Amino acid sequence: MKITREADYALRIVAMLAKSDKQIEAKVIAEKNDIPYRFTLKILRKIVQAGYLKSFRGVNGGYMLNKKPSEITFRNIIEVIDGEITLNVCLGENGCCSSNGKCALKQKLQKVQDIITSELDDITFEDVIEDMQ
Amino acid sequence: MKITREADYALRIVAMLAKSDKQIEAKVIAEKNDIPYRFTLKILRKIVQAGYLKSFRGVNGGYMLNKKPSEITFRNIIEVIDGEITLNVCLGENGCCSSNGKCALKQKLQKVQDIITSELDDITFEDVIEDMQ
Repeated sequence: MKITREADYALRIVAMLAKSDKQIEAKVIAEKNDIPYRFTLKILRKIVQAGYLKSFRGVNGGYMLNKKPSEITFRNIIEVIDGEITLNVCLGENGCCSSNGKCALKQKLQKVQDIITSELDDITFEDVIEDMQ
Repeated sequence: MKITREADYALRIVAMLAKSDKQIEAKVIAEKNDIPYRFTLKILRKIVQAGYLKSFRGVNGGYMLNKKPSEITFRNIIEVIDGEITLNVCLGENGCCSSNGKCALKQKLQKVQDIITSELDDITFEDVIEDMQ
């Protein structure tokens, strides 16, 4: 029941950019967060595509947030990388087993999943910046 | 951020046994839950070893709970299969990155993880039986 390492890196990258008031090069992001450079580029591309970061080309190019830190949640960034948060296979897109949802387990797990997504929705990168200071 | 399929099966198996007032054969458990027979045996062995089930050999052999349904939680069974619930690699046994715990991300994720484990601790198989009726 883990977020992937890639999602963990994505959270770190966005936290770093949320704290910065200017754009940061991919190379610096990679080095400061101990993430392989090519992997950093791959993650950055996904977050840009999802609209949470913008990139600038050229000599002074780099990355910065495309929204306010208070408008980006942990859930947003985790879902960009790992897809929709689903605690159990039966709660995902492809539905569930032959019991067809009439299952006490599913109801219980759905409740826990709702709590997880709601908690991750409540944490914004504004909160993270505050704790970093 | 999923529990494994094996942990999902384990929950189903324990729920079935919690509902039953007599022992059930591995073959029947496998069939009723749509789990491959050998995989069922593997899962049953782990739950027996952890002390939540007991097994009886012989013609009328089978499996039953070794505790009251109210004394077994979702967290217990998920952890038998998947190990300790850790939301992120940095919250696990092998500790975290070079920031050595002084990390706002870790604090936030720790809080979510604590909520998840507490929620899964609060659901017992007694609750599941009640919902099944």
